[in-house]
Amino acid sequence: MKLYMNDRSGNAYKPRLLLSMLNVPYEKVMVDTRAGDNRKEAFLKLNPRGQIPVLEDDGRVFWGSTAVLVYIARKHGGEKWLPTEPAAVAEVMQWLELAQNELHYGLQWARGVLNKIKTGNLEEYQGYGRRGLAVLEGHLGSHDWVALGRPTIADVACYPYTSLAEEAGLPLKNSPSVVAWISRFEALPGWVKRI
Amino acid sequence: MKLYMNDRSGNAYKPRLLLSMLNVPYEKVMVDTRAGDNRKEAFLKLNPRGQIPVLEDDGRVFWGSTAVLVYIARKHGGEKWLPTEPAAVAEVMQWLELAQNELHYGLQWARGVLNKIKTGNLEEYQGYGRRGLAVLEGHLGSHDWVALGRPTIADVACYPYTSLAEEAGLPLKNSPSVVAWISRFEALPGWVKRI
Repeated sequence: MKLYMNDRSGNAYKPRLLLSMLNVPYEKVMVDTRAGDNRKEAFLKLNPRGQIPVLEDDGRVFWGSTAVLVYIARKHGGEKWLPTEPAAVAEVMQWLELAQNELHYGLQWARGVLNKIKTGNLEEYQGYGRRGLAVLEGHLGSHDWVALGRPTIADVACYPYTSLAEEAGLPLKNSPSVVAWISRFEALPGWVKRI
Repeated sequence: MKLYMNDRSGNAYKPRLLLSMLNVPYEKVMVDTRAGDNRKEAFLKLNPRGQIPVLEDDGRVFWGSTAVLVYIARKHGGEKWLPTEPAAVAEVMQWLELAQNELHYGLQWARGVLNKIKTGNLEEYQGYGRRGLAVLEGHLGSHDWVALGRPTIADVACYPYTSLAEEAGLPLKNSPSVVAWISRFEALPGWVKRI
């Protein structure tokens, strides 16, 4: 199993976390996105969207953090990290949707503007990010985990950009339940630092 | 089964299409997003993100088009519209990810600006939308369907905003494979018009 990634990317951090938590060995292939390697022909053949992460396994290629998490969880996590029963899988997917929307084009994009790796409307992005954090805070006030009452890929998907909210200019001091969840997540066996 | 929706929403159109194609009866609950009903307390209790679609079934509530499609497909579509085998489900999810990213905050947001229901940077949104269309065109040049060689929820998720690309200011005349796929999709049993 080969993971195309780099150490800075929050989206690539998601499968790195899951692979480590599931104790699955894999080969890291570094993609220097700041040098534009993700926009070169060789990489675009793997992923026409020009983004990391990309996972290669048994001759198959999957792009995008959601698809890659789903693949790893279904192949190596049994029913635990992504179940197959309709209501359970939908509950997990609904939070991966938050991760791909308010957390991604909110928290990540605001962070990208502040870190000068992206242009765009900081206030617009921070507005989405703030809404995403409020949804998480509202939920985690009465739940230990994002979905199903246990760690799933919903936590793995929501954690990276939420834990980096300060870099998006959105301090977590008013989100105590999110802060407590971040601590619980970081105490899980197999948790690894991003950099 | 209750679907919170309105007739204009492309995201609510996704479950409407799947429910019709699977011949599943459901109750429509209209949410007037232009009047701001999605930002009122009663609706926010169902979905703190303040968006449609929302699905209520057997006392459970799911928000977001991806989670709702996954629920309906797993409950009523067997292995056909969303399989459970790792590589197959990941292949479908990778295209739902395109639908939630380049197609959503590209095509849909550009359309929203042009239709004056959203503010934002039209050129930025059209840039993402153009990239999403190029990825679809590249794939559909050699595939009849978006994933697995048959209709799945990947087609259902990608179809609404792609078929409305003209309203995003992005004509489809240079995307002949996308146009042919739209025709195939609209010929499927159970396909319904949005409005």
